[in-house]
Amino acid sequence: MEKVKIGVAGLGRLGKIHARNLAFKIPGAELTAACSLLESELAYAKNELNVQDCYTNYDEMLAKADIQAVAIVTSSGEHCKQLAAALDAGKHVFCEKPLGITVDECFAAEKAVEKHPEKVFLLGFMRRFDPSYVYAKAKIEDGAIGEPYLVKATGVDPLKYIEGALKFAKTSGGLFIDMAIHDIDLMRWFLKSDPVSVYAVGSSYGFPQFAEIGDAEAGCALYKFQNDAMGIIHTGRTAAHGYHIETEIVGTKGSIRISPVPQKNLAILYNEQGVVTECVEAFPERFDEAYRSELQYFIDCVLTGKTPEINVYDGTRSTQIAFATTRSFKEGALVHIQYSD
Amino acid sequence: MEKVKIGVAGLGRLGKIHARNLAFKIPGAELTAACSLLESELAYAKNELNVQDCYTNYDEMLAKADIQAVAIVTSSGEHCKQLAAALDAGKHVFCEKPLGITVDECFAAEKAVEKHPEKVFLLGFMRRFDPSYVYAKAKIEDGAIGEPYLVKATGVDPLKYIEGALKFAKTSGGLFIDMAIHDIDLMRWFLKSDPVSVYAVGSSYGFPQFAEIGDAEAGCALYKFQNDAMGIIHTGRTAAHGYHIETEIVGTKGSIRISPVPQKNLAILYNEQGVVTECVEAFPERFDEAYRSELQYFIDCVLTGKTPEINVYDGTRSTQIAFATTRSFKEGALVHIQYSD
Amino acid sequence: MEKVKIGVAGLGRLGKIHARNLAFKIPGAELTAACSLLESELAYAKNELNVQDCYTNYDEMLAKADIQAVAIVTSSGEHCKQLAAALDAGKHVFCEKPLGITVDECFAAEKAVEKHPEKVFLLGFMRRFDPSYVYAKAKIEDGAIGEPYLVKATGVDPLKYIEGALKFAKTSGGLFIDMAIHDIDLMRWFLKSDPVSVYAVGSSYGFPQFAEIGDAEAGCALYKFQNDAMGIIHTGRTAAHGYHIETEIVGTKGSIRISPVPQKNLAILYNEQGVVTECVEAFPERFDEAYRSELQYFIDCVLTGKTPEINVYDGTRSTQIAFATTRSFKEGALVHIQYSD
Amino acid sequence: MEKVKIGVAGLGRLGKIHARNLAFKIPGAELTAACSLLESELAYAKNELNVQDCYTNYDEMLAKADIQAVAIVTSSGEHCKQLAAALDAGKHVFCEKPLGITVDECFAAEKAVEKHPEKVFLLGFMRRFDPSYVYAKAKIEDGAIGEPYLVKATGVDPLKYIEGALKFAKTSGGLFIDMAIHDIDLMRWFLKSDPVSVYAVGSSYGFPQFAEIGDAEAGCALYKFQNDAMGIIHTGRTAAHGYHIETEIVGTKGSIRISPVPQKNLAILYNEQGVVTECVEAFPERFDEAYRSELQYFIDCVLTGKTPEINVYDGTRSTQIAFATTRSFKEGALVHIQYSD
Repeated sequence: MEKVKIGVAGLGRLGKIHARNLAFKIPGAELTAACSLLESELAYAKNELNVQDCYTNYDEMLAKADIQAVAIVTSSGEHCKQLAAALDAGKHVFCEKPLGITVDECFAAEKAVEKHPEKVFLLGFMRRFDPSYVYAKAKIEDGAIGEPYLVKATGVDPLKYIEGALKFAKTSGGLFIDMAIHDIDLMRWFLKSDPVSVYAVGSSYGFPQFAEIGDAEAGCALYKFQNDAMGIIHTGRTAAHGYHIETEIVGTKGSIRISPVPQKNLAILYNEQGVVTECVEAFPERFDEAYRSELQYFIDCVLTGKTPEINVYDGTRSTQIAFATTRSFKEGALVHIQYSD
Repeated sequence: MEKVKIGVAGLGRLGKIHARNLAFKIPGAELTAACSLLESELAYAKNELNVQDCYTNYDEMLAKADIQAVAIVTSSGEHCKQLAAALDAGKHVFCEKPLGITVDECFAAEKAVEKHPEKVFLLGFMRRFDPSYVYAKAKIEDGAIGEPYLVKATGVDPLKYIEGALKFAKTSGGLFIDMAIHDIDLMRWFLKSDPVSVYAVGSSYGFPQFAEIGDAEAGCALYKFQNDAMGIIHTGRTAAHGYHIETEIVGTKGSIRISPVPQKNLAILYNEQGVVTECVEAFPERFDEAYRSELQYFIDCVLTGKTPEINVYDGTRSTQIAFATTRSFKEGALVHIQYSD
Repeated sequence: MEKVKIGVAGLGRLGKIHARNLAFKIPGAELTAACSLLESELAYAKNELNVQDCYTNYDEMLAKADIQAVAIVTSSGEHCKQLAAALDAGKHVFCEKPLGITVDECFAAEKAVEKHPEKVFLLGFMRRFDPSYVYAKAKIEDGAIGEPYLVKATGVDPLKYIEGALKFAKTSGGLFIDMAIHDIDLMRWFLKSDPVSVYAVGSSYGFPQFAEIGDAEAGCALYKFQNDAMGIIHTGRTAAHGYHIETEIVGTKGSIRISPVPQKNLAILYNEQGVVTECVEAFPERFDEAYRSELQYFIDCVLTGKTPEINVYDGTRSTQIAFATTRSFKEGALVHIQYSD
Repeated sequence: MEKVKIGVAGLGRLGKIHARNLAFKIPGAELTAACSLLESELAYAKNELNVQDCYTNYDEMLAKADIQAVAIVTSSGEHCKQLAAALDAGKHVFCEKPLGITVDECFAAEKAVEKHPEKVFLLGFMRRFDPSYVYAKAKIEDGAIGEPYLVKATGVDPLKYIEGALKFAKTSGGLFIDMAIHDIDLMRWFLKSDPVSVYAVGSSYGFPQFAEIGDAEAGCALYKFQNDAMGIIHTGRTAAHGYHIETEIVGTKGSIRISPVPQKNLAILYNEQGVVTECVEAFPERFDEAYRSELQYFIDCVLTGKTPEINVYDGTRSTQIAFATTRSFKEGALVHIQYSD
């Protein structure tokens, strides 16, 4: 029974999730190395995950560790150069989103991936692995809603975590780049096309701090796609009820809606408020299974030689679209999006 | 355009509902007389309903008023003799539930109705006229769930009105007679059979006052029907979320559930509690449309000579079953129900 | 007990609904006159509504009928001049939406209404009278969701009635004028502001006939409001499941969503498909109660001298916005909306 | 990082689920041995789970395998003697439900467990580990519904698998023993009391084969508990929509309902049927996470020396109650339940 030896780079909140999955939950994976700038994170790897081969230097891990693959969960600005280095070192690469923090970086990442066609490269658009999204996609491919022509996507972070959002606002890239990139990927996935124009609006409603730095607390964008389909995104940082990710795909014969009520579980409370469903708190709770499934898929691709369906170009495109959306918001203008190919 | 002139007897909470409907909302009805022991209620009839022909004596109304029909909404103990008097006086009769407060009374009512086959007699099982129940019945007749074999009925009054329930507990006849009679009627309607045995349990959980007078605050009953079908009733007086009437009909090919969430309307609130649906407060809100529809049906029967589908025997049977249920609860024993026919 | 004598102009599908309500369901109203170009509609008034004072000429009705008010439910192109004539004839006016079919017409209507400040004028934005919308508005005024800053409105006609939509497509004014005007009114109502820019997209997806005449089968629009709030509209003509009217109002402390499942009633079917809720077929079913309530409100205003909260300027604004939306769709450009005041 | 070496006995449908979890998904567990009468099942262990230490004889595994614990997932008739043998061999024991197939067997199992108080013994009532049930229990302990006084439990197998149910009907022990034992355990868990009387009814409605062998296709039972609480069970084998496990706990201040819609995932389909939620097919899908969690809990108990909250007496009691329920159904009588302590 073959196992893929893998090293993880980055052991923050999401890095720990991936590392635990690789250590314990993914048949076929063996987490054997870890890299972090923080000693506390490496101590976690040693003590909680039983990973003894630890590094504070990423390139050293690539050079010395006995691994066939790396999972890159570092800060966004590191992704592009780290994935290139890993591929050049002969490793398969799982890389968290976003691909890069500029479009030029993404183009560089494309070249790095193209140079190593025999290596598996997977970008972490984990929603595509969530059971509800997998189901929706399968139903649609099966004709359940006819031809999809509109995606309405909502992604709002919980008000409960507003402090963190405010703290990282300046370096987040802005609402549409930080938050909407998953929704942009979903639109492209379901509509099988790219947007050619976008109009975005947004503002600060409860937290003027966002406006003060030129960002928005909540925003909406409307997209027209190459194939005449439409896309709507509503994103924000202050959902009182929890972490709200909702997607509707409308087709010529019906529609599918995912998670209008972001329920914590299947229990419903009847009390003096009425009938109450508690909601998920944040992304680790909502996408727990998706995070496992995407890494399982990555390992399966490595073991079988299959090419992942999500590719580096998906990373570039979603980034381009997020930047165009941001420009529309900042300029108050309709923005036409052109792709280089 | 023919109109049925009708008099109302009793103008309490439910009497007012019926009277307003007859006065303003039922094409074909003309509320022209009213009878009540209370001057305040008659003042209401005069000022709010424009009914000038008012009586404090029921028999006087029957004798003098220019009416073809009466709506009896007096206290339960009056129903049987008042309906007989009205029929004898040549009036069509709409009578609120229950038919009577003893089974013998019900038998007397049967005779009174049998004596006047040309008169319309309708008993106020209004749930049968609620759009959701009408729909469920039609779907079932249409084969949507195959052969129905189990009804699970829940009827719980709102905690908000517990003061009233405590105040009238002694004269209510007890939980199963006061509350479950509608559910009993629904079971019979959907299962097209009568129960032959019943086991009932119940107790006081938050309000010992009920136990102190030998009654229950909440109770459940399990019925076995002549045709081998099953029935479950859960009834009580303390729903924190509102007025909870829920019915499930299970059949060989599917099931239909009515109102698991007794929503006030179609609005849903997303707030720091989660996702919240406010619920209906009490029966006038829940069955607003049903009350209109049952009187519309009554008037239509009068105008067209149609015989109502709900008959006096439904009243007797539901009463017999409620008494048997009460006996089982009081004796802690399985009770077999025998019908005289 | 005073009653308002009223005449109805127009007895088509919606005209009949209003007329029946006025004849039978609105205490305080007395339908005494009717006007239609069609003898069959007047026959309906005579036979079904017991209205004997019938006219084929609108001005003749105004001149001769013993009425204090008119309900205008004629074709959209007649509204403006008919309401002016009625006001000049000293009648109170209930007028179906839209106010007019051009913005200039609306300005003329404003003048007509301003000339008769003592007369009640109500425009038929019935959704504002639907119990769920009334509830949502009250909760919001009560602070339940903090400050509203985004309205997401969906209005899609049932696929079942596509034949009619195709037949009237040419004269409908186009998707955004014909369908979105209610959603535009709702946005303005909930956000208490007017949009200053709009981007709209749309196309034909299943029925190329719409594109052939320059119209859209489905479309979306994104609005930026004067007060920085946002609005999204999704409208179309081909909902497979029924008549889909859904509105979400997002505020700083929560949100309210109305009718994500446009349920026919409270019954839910469990069958081999899964758990199924049947949906409302069309607007008369969905807004049955709203149609009654808006006329009740109109009659109450007439009887009490109260000034309606919906005024003629709401009609003008919604029309202006619908036209701007249409222009954006047709030109593929961002459109800035300027108001004359 | 200590790991518990464990052997699995039985590799049928559920045995495979447990074995896969132990092999791949439970940090702290190491599946090192397997036992089955079937070579094909042992081949599965070798090839799919990488377990090379395989046995066709259970006692041989106990004697030879290097294991600290066993997971017993054999046929119900083997449970009692196998758990006793394992405990005597010094192994910790996870045993699938039911504890035994007679009450006497259960008493013997109690003695076996009592003899080895230092060993962990856990019975597989996995529902107690399902996130929704865990949540409900925690909310209740937290006072969210006041004092629980009624449990309404529904457990119906999917019509889709009726062939299997018919095939095993004769050896299943009957509907109430085979199906209701989980619901019985849930009632006891939530109400913290044992039933003292039961009345059960049931019959065959679509499949006379059950009646022919004295069993029921669907049945209901009503329980009165020692503490005056109430319990209702509805169980059956023919849910058209899927695998239906629903539980409602009613308390003095509210209630909690788990899974009224046994949804497959968070996606909802809008199509010509209406609004449709697809349902889970069977228990592996519904309780996927619960199966992992209960074994995780077992391993944690072994590693930490914690005593499981579910004990052998829970197994005996649920069996006694299931037998009493069956007797009531067969005799058509109220049955009083007495416990030996």
